[in-house]
Amino acid sequence: MEPFAVTRYYEELTVGDVFETGGYTVTKDEIVEFAEQFDPQPFHVDEEAAAESMFGELVASGLHTLCLSVRLFVTDVVQGEDGVANMGGLGMDDLRWHEPVRPGDTLRVRVEVLEKNPSESRSDRGYVTFGRSVVVDETTVLSITSSNVIRRRDTGR
Amino acid sequence: MEPFAVTRYYEELTVGDVFETGGYTVTKDEIVEFAEQFDPQPFHVDEEAAAESMFGELVASGLHTLCLSVRLFVTDVVQGEDGVANMGGLGMDDLRWHEPVRPGDTLRVRVEVLEKNPSESRSDRGYVTFGRSVVVDETTVLSITSSNVIRRRDTGR
Repeated sequence: MEPFAVTRYYEELTVGDVFETGGYTVTKDEIVEFAEQFDPQPFHVDEEAAAESMFGELVASGLHTLCLSVRLFVTDVVQGEDGVANMGGLGMDDLRWHEPVRPGDTLRVRVEVLEKNPSESRSDRGYVTFGRSVVVDETTVLSITSSNVIRRRDTGR
Repeated sequence: MEPFAVTRYYEELTVGDVFETGGYTVTKDEIVEFAEQFDPQPFHVDEEAAAESMFGELVASGLHTLCLSVRLFVTDVVQGEDGVANMGGLGMDDLRWHEPVRPGDTLRVRVEVLEKNPSESRSDRGYVTFGRSVVVDETTVLSITSSNVIRRRDTGR
């Protein structure tokens, strides 16, 4: 029993479907706090060191950008108005950080259904590949694909 | 000027080099706190819902496992006794979650240098691909490759 309304099972996802999330604005304090916990490199936690780095200023850990994009995908797509029956993740591919994310940037995620395949061994599920682009203003800062296990409607709870 | 001693520049990394990190034991509270922030799906934040999920119990977000593996890579390899002159990340490929991570599991990361190529346009850097496996006891729970920009010694600070 999900706390949100699942209306999109495997059958309702179609290659080419596009979803857009709302925006999330990241602060300097959040960038430093995240990096201290998971990616404590000088250019993510120390403004002076960051000024001397190849970024020239404090930038978010790329891992932080990825985490924020997953949050937006989960809250606005998987658990959005038309929730997706996501059973879990299999993996991610082709992660590229195109541009750094800076304090005050507002991230949005564009999600596209790239591929779907029914499970050959389990009739209750299929596999869906999503392409995700994280955009700040008009610039793509991160792109990635993810493969998820999606419940089928005919066996869904 | 880094707060740790960098002794491994691009030239000192050799294909086949292997590094092993120490261990990090993840708690249930950390799993729930991380998931509430970045991946608030029922099987990561709610024990009852998790019991009904395909995992059968509360499991860490795979994104959390990835974040903890980056932390171990940064603290124990990049900023370890022989620090690596990492300038930043380019991307990651082939992320696979092989097994779920549960409260109390101790993660260790095995890192191998898979490939290195000098930059053709910038003489101060090269590109290194690392393969990383996250292991709990003898079981690989996550595997991924990452591509990083590494400073060359002859132009290093």
